[in-house]
Formats: sequence, C-alpha cells, structure tokens
Amino acid sequence: MDFEHSERTRALLARLDAFIEQEIAPREEPYHRQLLASDDPWVVLPVIEELKGKAREQGLWNLFLPDAEHGAGLSNVEYAPLAERLGRSIIASEVCNCNAPDTGNMEVLWHFGSDEQKQRWLAPLLAGEIRSAFCMTEPQVASSDATNMQATAILDGEEVVLNGRKWWSTGVGHPKCEALIFMGLTDTEADRYHQHSMVLVPRDTPGVKVERMLPAMGFLDAPGGHGEVSFTDVRLPASAIIGGAGQAFAIAQARLGPGRIHHCMRLIGLAEMVLSLACARATERVAFGKPIANLGGNRERIADARIAIDQARLHVLHAAWLLDQNSPAALGAVSQIKVATPNMAQGVADMAIQMHGGGGLSDDFPLAAAWTVARALRLADGPDEVHRGVIARLELAAYGKGKWAGS
Amino acid sequence: MDFEHSERTRALLARLDAFIEQEIAPREEPYHRQLLASDDPWVVLPVIEELKGKAREQGLWNLFLPDAEHGAGLSNVEYAPLAERLGRSIIASEVCNCNAPDTGNMEVLWHFGSDEQKQRWLAPLLAGEIRSAFCMTEPQVASSDATNMQATAILDGEEVVLNGRKWWSTGVGHPKCEALIFMGLTDTEADRYHQHSMVLVPRDTPGVKVERMLPAMGFLDAPGGHGEVSFTDVRLPASAIIGGAGQAFAIAQARLGPGRIHHCMRLIGLAEMVLSLACARATERVAFGKPIANLGGNRERIADARIAIDQARLHVLHAAWLLDQNSPAALGAVSQIKVATPNMAQGVADMAIQMHGGGGLSDDFPLAAAWTVARALRLADGPDEVHRGVIARLELAAYGKGKWAGS
Amino acid sequence: MDFEHSERTRALLARLDAFIEQEIAPREEPYHRQLLASDDPWVVLPVIEELKGKAREQGLWNLFLPDAEHGAGLSNVEYAPLAERLGRSIIASEVCNCNAPDTGNMEVLWHFGSDEQKQRWLAPLLAGEIRSAFCMTEPQVASSDATNMQATAILDGEEVVLNGRKWWSTGVGHPKCEALIFMGLTDTEADRYHQHSMVLVPRDTPGVKVERMLPAMGFLDAPGGHGEVSFTDVRLPASAIIGGAGQAFAIAQARLGPGRIHHCMRLIGLAEMVLSLACARATERVAFGKPIANLGGNRERIADARIAIDQARLHVLHAAWLLDQNSPAALGAVSQIKVATPNMAQGVADMAIQMHGGGGLSDDFPLAAAWTVARALRLADGPDEVHRGVIARLELAAYGKGKWAGS
Amino acid sequence: MDFEHSERTRALLARLDAFIEQEIAPREEPYHRQLLASDDPWVVLPVIEELKGKAREQGLWNLFLPDAEHGAGLSNVEYAPLAERLGRSIIASEVCNCNAPDTGNMEVLWHFGSDEQKQRWLAPLLAGEIRSAFCMTEPQVASSDATNMQATAILDGEEVVLNGRKWWSTGVGHPKCEALIFMGLTDTEADRYHQHSMVLVPRDTPGVKVERMLPAMGFLDAPGGHGEVSFTDVRLPASAIIGGAGQAFAIAQARLGPGRIHHCMRLIGLAEMVLSLACARATERVAFGKPIANLGGNRERIADARIAIDQARLHVLHAAWLLDQNSPAALGAVSQIKVATPNMAQGVADMAIQMHGGGGLSDDFPLAAAWTVARALRLADGPDEVHRGVIARLELAAYGKGKWAGS
Repeated sequence: MDFEHSERTRALLARLDAFIEQEIAPREEPYHRQLLASDDPWVVLPVIEELKGKAREQGLWNLFLPDAEHGAGLSNVEYAPLAERLGRSIIASEVCNCNAPDTGNMEVLWHFGSDEQKQRWLAPLLAGEIRSAFCMTEPQVASSDATNMQATAILDGEEVVLNGRKWWSTGVGHPKCEALIFMGLTDTEADRYHQHSMVLVPRDTPGVKVERMLPAMGFLDAPGGHGEVSFTDVRLPASAIIGGAGQAFAIAQARLGPGRIHHCMRLIGLAEMVLSLACARATERVAFGKPIANLGGNRERIADARIAIDQARLHVLHAAWLLDQNSPAALGAVSQIKVATPNMAQGVADMAIQMHGGGGLSDDFPLAAAWTVARALRLADGPDEVHRGVIARLELAAYGKGKWAGS
Repeated sequence: MDFEHSERTRALLARLDAFIEQEIAPREEPYHRQLLASDDPWVVLPVIEELKGKAREQGLWNLFLPDAEHGAGLSNVEYAPLAERLGRSIIASEVCNCNAPDTGNMEVLWHFGSDEQKQRWLAPLLAGEIRSAFCMTEPQVASSDATNMQATAILDGEEVVLNGRKWWSTGVGHPKCEALIFMGLTDTEADRYHQHSMVLVPRDTPGVKVERMLPAMGFLDAPGGHGEVSFTDVRLPASAIIGGAGQAFAIAQARLGPGRIHHCMRLIGLAEMVLSLACARATERVAFGKPIANLGGNRERIADARIAIDQARLHVLHAAWLLDQNSPAALGAVSQIKVATPNMAQGVADMAIQMHGGGGLSDDFPLAAAWTVARALRLADGPDEVHRGVIARLELAAYGKGKWAGS
Repeated sequence: MDFEHSERTRALLARLDAFIEQEIAPREEPYHRQLLASDDPWVVLPVIEELKGKAREQGLWNLFLPDAEHGAGLSNVEYAPLAERLGRSIIASEVCNCNAPDTGNMEVLWHFGSDEQKQRWLAPLLAGEIRSAFCMTEPQVASSDATNMQATAILDGEEVVLNGRKWWSTGVGHPKCEALIFMGLTDTEADRYHQHSMVLVPRDTPGVKVERMLPAMGFLDAPGGHGEVSFTDVRLPASAIIGGAGQAFAIAQARLGPGRIHHCMRLIGLAEMVLSLACARATERVAFGKPIANLGGNRERIADARIAIDQARLHVLHAAWLLDQNSPAALGAVSQIKVATPNMAQGVADMAIQMHGGGGLSDDFPLAAAWTVARALRLADGPDEVHRGVIARLELAAYGKGKWAGS
Repeated sequence: MDFEHSERTRALLARLDAFIEQEIAPREEPYHRQLLASDDPWVVLPVIEELKGKAREQGLWNLFLPDAEHGAGLSNVEYAPLAERLGRSIIASEVCNCNAPDTGNMEVLWHFGSDEQKQRWLAPLLAGEIRSAFCMTEPQVASSDATNMQATAILDGEEVVLNGRKWWSTGVGHPKCEALIFMGLTDTEADRYHQHSMVLVPRDTPGVKVERMLPAMGFLDAPGGHGEVSFTDVRLPASAIIGGAGQAFAIAQARLGPGRIHHCMRLIGLAEMVLSLACARATERVAFGKPIANLGGNRERIADARIAIDQARLHVLHAAWLLDQNSPAALGAVSQIKVATPNMAQGVADMAIQMHGGGGLSDDFPLAAAWTVARALRLADGPDEVHRGVIARLELAAYGKGKWAGS
C-alpha cells in the first residue's frame, strides 16, 4: 500500500500548480467581476482564450483523457489529484480543456465514436475550439429512474428522428456549443438495457430549440449554463447514432464512472478552496475582542471540515484505483463517493458561508456558487437516494439470498 | 395551559385564510412568472397594489401592530399564527403591509418616534404608500459584534452628520423606498450601550448612495432587495435622531424581540408551504414503479420535517407569550427560536429540493428561494453562534458563580 | 393561548418540588451507592418504603391517575409537568407510586378492569403494596408489528390458556411484583384488531417462569428490571381476561397515549437533570487553564441542549393537551413526541457524558443510566421508524388520495 | 498510488482469516455465554489459553510488534488490516497477543525499556504469560490536559516513590496482570514536557491497591476490566523508571501514534462485524409483511454505514502510512482518525442496535458492548474535542501568522 502519487502525476502536479499560481490565480477575481458586470453573460471573455492558449502550450491540456496521444494518458487515480487542483479554481477546468460535460462527451466519442464522428466533433473538442452539451434528463418524469425516459430516437429508414424535451443540459448556453449528445428511446421491444440510443446532434439542426436557461439556486452559471431544450422532429442520418442503436445504457455506464470521479475530485478541490477562505476569514475578522476562529465552536468546525475533506479525498482516490483495476468493487465505490463527496462539500461550504457572515451569501466570495455546485451534484448524475439504494443492494446481496431474489 | 388561539386570532385567521385562498393563491405563480419575465425586476407589479387595496378594505392590514387604532392591536402570541399564514405565501406579507423590514421600522417609529416623525413617515408607512429600509450591518467588520460598528452619526450643532458604509439594507431597492433608518456611533465616551444613535434618513438626502444591490445566494429578492449603501457627509437636523442620541441599542433591543418572532413565524409558514410541495411531489412522481414517497427513507424524511415544524411552532409561540408577559425568560427564548427556526426551515427546504430532483434547484418552484430565505436568517439579526452564546451564558449563570464573573 | 399551568398543577408542583428537595434529593446518591454495594440488587431498600409513606401522607401519590378519588384527578397536560419533576430523580417516580409500568397497568385496570380485578389488584397497586409487569413483546419476532405476536390466549370452556414467550417485561424482577398483564392471540378468525386478549396473570400461577433478567446496555435496572418470561399452559379462569376477549388492541391504544406522554415527560426531567450535571461539571473542571465550558464548542453544545429540551417539553405538553381535548390530531402528536423526545434525551446524555470525561462512562454519575433509559425508549412502545411511518401516513393522507388508498 | 496490501500482509491476512474462521468464530458465542454465566467473571477461561497456544504455533502472534524477531516485523500500514480482522472478533486480539493495553506497554518496553526490564517484563508479555495495565488518567482532574496530572513519582536517593490515584487502568482486573506502567510528576522545575516519569510497577508492590473495578456504560469488560488504583508511598528502585526520569511525555507520544492506529483499525473491524449483524437481521426479520431491510430508511442506513466504514478504513490506513513515512502530517492525521473512527463506529453500532429492536439492547448480541467500546474511545486516548483542537491549530497555522502567535 503506497499513497504516493506516480512520478508522472507528481511532475504534472508541479507544473499545474505553478501554472495556476502564476497565470490563473491572478486573473480569477477580475474574471469573476468582469462577467458579473457584463450585460450579456453568455460570452467567452478574452482572458479565457488567452489562458487556454498558454495551457495548451505548456501541455496542461486534455489531462483527463486516458489516450496518451490526444491527452495526458493518465489512469483515473493519476488524473484525480490534477482534477482536484482544477477544482480549486473557478476557471481552471475550462482553461485546461477539462470541463464537464465536454470531458464526458469527449470520452464517449473517443471510446464509441465512428471515425467520421471523431474527425468532425472529437477533434475540435479536443482542440478546445467548440463546446458540447449532454441532453439526458427530462422535466416531466423522475429521471433518477432512467427507464422513465420519454424522449424518442426512432429509426426511419436511413434516418433517426428525435422528439422530446430535455433539461439541465449543461453547457448548452455557451456561444461555442455546437454539439449535443441526445439520449432517447429507440426500441421498446428490446430488453430493458438495450432500448435507448445516444445521438450526436449538431446544435443548429432544425427542430432543436433551447427553450430557456435554468438558474440553479439562483445561479445561471454562464457562460455554459443549463438549458431546457426541445427536440421536435429532429432528423439526422442514422450514422449520427453513437456506437449503434440501443447502446445508450452501455455508453452511459462507461461515461459515468470516470465522470463521477472527476466531479468528486473537483468538489474536493472546491472544498479545499472554500475551507481556505473560511480559515483566512476566521483569522482576520475580529468580534468580541478575538479572531472569530477563537469564538465558540469555530475551531471544531474547521477541524471537522479538514477531517471530512481528507476522508473524501482518500475515498475518491480509492474508487479511481478500483476503476483502474477493473475491480467489481468499483460500482459500489463510485456510488459511495457520489453520495459522500457532494454532501461533504455542501457542508464545508455552508460552514464557510456562516464564517463569512453576510459576505458569505453575497457574490463577493465564490462561496454561494460553491455551495450551489455541491448541492446540484447531490442530484446530478443520480440523486443520493438512488446511489444509496445501489450501495445497500450490493451490501445485502450476501445475506439471506433466498428472500432477496428479485428485490 | 391552553393551546387554543384567542377568539380574535381565530376570527382573523378565518378571514385571512379565506383571503389568501381566494385572492392571493391564484395570483402567486402568475406574479412570480411575470416578475421573472420583466426586464427590470425593481418594480411593483400592479397586482400587488390591487391586492393591497383589497386587504386593507377587509381589515387584513397592519396585523403586526400592537396598536389597536392603527393596527390589529394583537399581542405577539396572537399575531404569531397570522404571521405564519403570511409566511406560506411569497407575497402575502407585502399585501397585508406586514413585510420586514417595514414592520420593524414602523414599530420603532410607533414606540420611539417624535410626533413629527410619526406624521411624516409612520403614517404613509402604515398606509402602505411608502417603503423603508434599515441600515445597520457593515461590510468591513464582523457586525455580529455591534460594538464593531464604524459608521458615525456625529452631532454638529443643530445637525447630525452621517458617514459610513452599510450593507444588507433590505428593501432599499424598492421603487417606493423613501425612508432609511441608519445606525451609527455618536459618542465614544458614553458607556458601551449608549454610544450609538438611530437616525431617520430620507432616501433622497444628498450623500446617500446605493452602491449596488447584493444577491443572496444568487437571488436579488426584487423588488425590495438588499443594498450596499454609502453615507457621505449626510447632514440632517438633529430632530432626525430617533428617541434621542445614544438610544440606538435600547431601540434595537425593543425592535428585535418582536421582529425575530415575526421572522420565525413566517419561516414556519414557509416550511409548511415547502413541506406541502414535497408531499405533493412525493405522491405524484413515480420512479422504479412507485410514488417516490414510498422509496427509501422519503417517508421518514417527511415525518422528521413534520416533527421539526411542529416543535418550532410551539417554541416560537411560547417565546411570543413570554415576551407578552414581560418575562425575563423571553431573552433566552428569543435567542433559542432565532437559532432553531431558520435551521429547521433550511433543513426542510433542502429535503423538499431533493424530493423535487432538478426541478428543486430551478425557479419553477419557490424552493430554492425558500432555502435562501432560511439560510440568510441564520445570519441576519445575529448569527446562530452569537445566539448560542447568549443561551449558554444564561444557562451557566446559575453555576459556579465565583469562577464565572466576567466571562 | 396560555402557557401557564393550572392552579392545581402549580400547587402540586410547589409541594412536589419541596418534597424532592427536602426528602428525596439527599437520599438519592446514598440509595444508588447502597444498591450498587448490595450483593442482591433485587431488593427494595428500606429508604424507599419510608419515602413512599411520606409521599402518601403528603398527598403526592398516584399523581398520574385521572380519577380524583383514587389519584390526583389531573388531566394529561396538568400531570405532565409533575411527571417531568419526577423524571429528574432516579427514585421519585417509584416513591410517588407513579412508576412505569405500574402506572399504565393501573390505568388499564381502572378503565377496563372488572370489579373483582379492581378489588384484588388495582387496590393494592394504588396503595403501593404490590408491583406489576406488562408482557407484550416477544424475542422471536419483530414486535414493532403487533400482528407478528405468537403467544396465545386460547379460550377453553370457562378457562383461558396462555402459552408463549415474552421479553422486556419491565418490573418482573421486583420482589413485590405479583401481577402480570399478558397479551396473546385468541381468535385468528376475528378482524385484525380483535384477535388479541389481555389477561391478568398472578405472578405465582403455575406455568409462569422468569427465564432470565435482561440487561439493557449493561444495566439490569434492579430492582424492577426487565425479564424474559415463559408461559407454558398457564390456566386461568376466563374472568382473568381484561375487558373481554379480543379487546387487547383497544386497551393497548388507550394505555399507550398517556403512557407515552408520561415516558416523554419523565425523559424531559431526565434531560434537565443531565444538562444540569453537564453545566456543573463544565464550570468546575479546568483544562488548559479554563473551565471546560469555555473550551471549543462546549458552550454551543450546552445551548443546543437547552434548545432541544425546551422544544421537546412544549411538544409533549401540546400532545398531552390534544389528548385531553380528544383531538384527532393527538394520534400523530403522540407519535411525534415518541420519536423526538428519546432522541433528544439520548443526545443530551451523550453530550453530558462527553463533558464528564471518563467519569461520564462510570456509575459515579447517573449519566450512563440516563443515556440507556433514553436509548431504550427509542425502541420501547414502538421503535422510531414505526412512529415515523405513522406520522408520514397522516401527513400524506391529504395528497394524491387515489394513489395512496391502502398504503 | 497503490491500494494493494503488501505480499507479507496478504499472506498473513489469508492465514489469520482462516484461523479466525476455523478456530475462533465457532468458540466466540460459547465463550461469551460461559463468561456471562460464571459467578466470577475475573477469570481466564481455558478456551482462551488453548486458542493462544494455537495462534502462537501458527505464527499469528505479536503481529503488532515492528520487531521481526519477537513479532511480525510489520509497518503500521501492514499491520493495520490485520488489526481490523482482530477487531471483528471479541477475543481474537487477546488470542493473538495483540490486545490493548498490553500492545502499547510492550512497545514502550521494546523501545525504551532497560535490558533488565525487557528480560523481566517484556519477555513474559511477549510470551502471553502475564498481562499489564497502564495507569495514567486520574479521577480528580481533567486528564485531557496532561499537565493537570497530580500523581507523583518523586526521586528519593536510589528510589522512586509513587503517590496518587489513577482510574480507567484497563486490564488491571485480569488475573494475570502483573505489571503496571504508572505516570507521575517528578520535577516541577523542568520544562513542561520533561516533568513526568513512567515507572514500571510490579502489581504486588506494597502500597498498590485496586480500589474498585469501573463499569463502562454498565459493562465491566471482564476479565481485564478498568480499575481505579491508588498508589500510596509505593517505593521502587529508581531503575524502575522507564527511559529515565522526565521522559514520560516523549514515551507517551511514541506510544500513542501506533496505539491510536491499532484502536481505530480494531474499531473498523468492530463496525464491520456490527454492520454484518445488522444486515443479517434486516434480511431475516419480517414486519408488516416485508424483511425490515425493505422498510422505511433502513436500506439508506445500511448504505450510509458502508460509506462511513470505507471512508474510515482508508483514513486510518493513510494515517498509518504517514506514520511509517515519518511524515510531519502524521500528527494531524492521527488526531483526525482518533475523532472520526470512534464516532463512526458508535453510529454504526447505534444503527445496528435499532435494527435489532429490543435484542440490540440485550447481551444476546455483542452490539451494546460494541457501542460501548466505540463510545469509550471518544474519551480514551484524548477526547474528541482535544483532538479537534490539535487539527484546527495545524490547519490555522498557515493563516494570519502575526495574530496567531501564542494561540
């Protein structure tokens, strides 16, 4: 058992830390202010493109991609600490072309895309020239149960026809968003896990309409945002289907493991950032004659946050390692971190908000936004309750088999 | 011991319930949509003025004011259940002229205002013709310790001169906001509780500037909002001081008891509204073949919410009754409810958000806004930690007196 | 709404407080030490009988009984604060003949007993001359679901024959325990709520055997204790059935409402006692140069305990009042307090243990025992989960009726 | 980063698992019953000695000792998973000579003992022929602050004289307990960390008296137990001092790191055992027509327990690894696991008790005892609050240095 990172990771961490400190950190608050002050937040400010250029030059680009030619070629456990560093910043993931949902979409195309799809869509995504969205959950049903999905992707000769309404399509508000991955029901006769297809939809296809951008707890999260998107008789060649009709569940499963690990590691970085703001505030602000760190239970809260973050980090790294080992235990481990990490980050952010007083609620600090990201991830990629159900099913599988068949 | 409401309260409850059901409820969601859709949210939509007229006609007006001539003449424990009903709606408090911070400001003027102040400011406030704000906390210091206050209200001959920067001045964004109550340091030589003054400042006095409107967890809470306001050499006649120089602490104390009870009772109404949305969703949405109420721990969560709300309601009613009795126990009781109620409401809202899936984060439901109101009240009117300190001090006062002197 | 106790209650409270202070308090710790030191803990120490005599003389006797002739004739809400006072002491309930399960058993006999049963059993119970036990839950099944009950009470001509094994029969170890109330299945053909009977069993009837006394979290709770009792072909005249065959559920329901309120009010007294020990320790013990009250989050913990106790007290009083009013809301309210109060008391006791360091785990303080009482009551009289189920069912009854029928 | 155990550990795990399954598991419940049934619990039942012999034969002996000659020669991270396995059983630690406090005492002697001490005391301890106790905390002061210690170890010529009263001296009730390690104040003039000495005291030295055995939450934990021990003018040659006068703090620090890791890993094993009982019960017991696993929030509770255990295990393994690396981060990490692990185990045990109904409180299952072990470890080896203070101090050290000096 060795908790040391690999040499590759250590080298990349050193370079990434230096890049964040020198290039990104000084531009974060100005970026945040500038975006707040702009009339139209659905823009890419020039500083982002400038930083992306530098990141690419320095090889801090596509770090997430297991492909050594087009990305960093890292395993999950090797990429995880880099994702944590990215998560400490509000723009670093985007700057290093490691932002969701593009990362997941790129992985899908890298694993399952046709050559044509790779050339037309994966290449510019990997180059950071375009952005993408993922259209899965629907407003009218409980999407925690994927079999509820109502949108359709019906084969019609050489074409596939899409209909339905999706929401929480993250990234669809981005001015460079050109590709949507749509998931819909193709064949109700097939077995439960082969009824759905994923289809790559060019953003400008007739019948695709962004109905509105959704605020999450008051935040639009521009410029990517989250959209409600309607698909009305959207016609595409059948070759737009990714990996073949009926393969959506298999693709989703492959996408979700690493995707959840990325989300969780970024959240750990977020929690570290938030805790460091809380500590700074706690030592600088004075009330009743003492730094507020020394009042009431504040030190215990800081200690509890440190414990929670360190436990969560080890947990996610372990899940990443299990995934790398193709361990059957990875399934439960990924569900575990998906429950534990957002709850941890939400709690740390709540503590940090309280430590900041009224400032914590404002947009003077990235705390309210951090809280919201963590809160949203208790629902996105499967609500806590569904993951707890998976974990319990695995745990109970060894007991009283007779009674449990079919449960 | 009798938990029955007074006859007056029961009669008013019946009328208020009918008014909310018939007049307000049907207009709530349309109001919400219309405000979201408007380019400028800092407006009073006509429906509000229309409803205010009806409320006033029906005597559902100024219910909070203990004065039987200008208000309903109710004790705190009599008004409390009405405040709960108002809190179930996002506009009813405003419609019945029972909205914070105007209620507190009206009480201050009613108790401590000069005849001139009453005529010029209290009368139109009671008539619902103007709105007001309260300018106390400051961005540069920990305002949980009121002695940190840096703004000044210096006497200069017949005048008082105000300087300083305030924030979280709720209501200052309202188009009808015409009066600000400002609190500042007048006399550093006086004893600790007589150094500060409250000054009534017409909104259009030179030197008063709303620097910006602050979002709370992403919400601007228009049209009242929360402002950061600078006061630069603001000159007013000394008669603008309320209740005499150095009286601010005494006034604040008188204001805060009933004010905290109102906040808490409205929060209980809010929690009831939020729980009812959760129950409706839990019975209507289906996943994995069952209404989601029947999945996992959802029923237990609903039960826990019911327990928490009912305990909080009794707690607040008891604190109101102690205040009505001029009991010395009221001080601790008000601090207790001020800790317990917002935490309860935040928890219920978090549960309801989770029960709604992605919808819970959106503005399709008033859940994210409800969460934010509750969260903000863990800081407004004294953060949880300060109130816990008060409660512990009172609790420990009976023990080991020798050691505790001066603690 | 009036939170003042009735004049009768206030008068009894004054006398009871004086009696506890003067007579009981000085004898508590010696009693505890003497019982610990005795070779056989299944004894009634003389001090108990002496104190019982005094309590009876002073009219502080059978305070729980709504009958004005044989008891204090108080309503539930009037008795509740007296029960709280009794709960602050480890012997006062017994001294005032207000101890469970005798209270519940006396109420059952008072309500449902035949004249013969009243004369033979109720009279000496009311006189404090004998003790009793209640035999309901069973080791082999989940007794949270009463329909699981396997013990039988079969009519055989003029006789009833009992078979089965019961446990957690509290009080059965008491040297004066002479009567058991046994619940068993009589008629599987009757509807679900009329299948069971309660039977009054003299302790010395052939076939009744106390198999063992059960420790609860290590505590035997002598001299009453909790027994596992087997019933083997126990034959009694049919007149031993209480209230008629098939009436057990109706009797149990009538018994459980007030019984749960008594339990909860005693727990509130217990929590007050425990908090007061924590406060005393927190001010007396010094570590790192400060009384431990001033270390870390200890004051916040004390504040949270105060909040929790006060909320629970109001909650239980309200439930008692609803029961007195025959309100349909009493059902849910009693389930609510049954969940909330033991959890509250367990938490306060855990805090007090921690505040006492190693001493908190020992039997030098009544903290470990208090914790255990509270913990046990999360299971006794229905586990938390079952009560939460009741509360949720009531809460959801108003929603989506169609879907919920039969749930 | 590699989460795989070392080859040595894997080999030992395989043998230990087999030994526990074949030799220990079948004897656990009979042992427990036999001990409960014996009149005198302060005995070593023959089965223990028999199993010890087998363990020693198979080389499953002194696994904790880093010395390859006398023990297994494992690093902390290598021993940790073995300690977890031992913790799943109530007797395995003793059987494999890996029980506290003997392990810590053996380590102290191995590191700091003189040749004479090693020969006379370490040898028979390593051989499992005698047992030992550790006498540190005192009833009259808050022992969380070691500088409060009142017991003295005064040098008098060639002798050292011990006076004072210790409690929670675990193991002192064991019939084979022959050696006590006593800690007392030697030199109040020395600097704060060099005032105390550790002295090896033969159990039968005149002046040593076990005043009483202390129950922990009702449990005597026989046959080792926890004693209150008085030392009255206990005279020993100065050579009985371990590692030299004034070295007690240094020795304690060296002892506590691995000791806390062992405790935590055993707790993780305990939590696994407890969770497995909960799962078995949840699938076997039926209420309301379903296995109780399928009622209410029970599955979510099982999932939360799994998450909590897995996080804690990784956390402890990481702390062990840091200790092995001599990392400066080990200090904080050990405090973190010392807070987090007992709280986790207490929570899992509380859940398992609830899942077992009344049985969970009884001694039919090792649940109440498991809860008590976990609860006691929130106080033993430093209460939670003290460790949180250490963690917060380390966390805040990087912030606002100027202000924090001396805090």
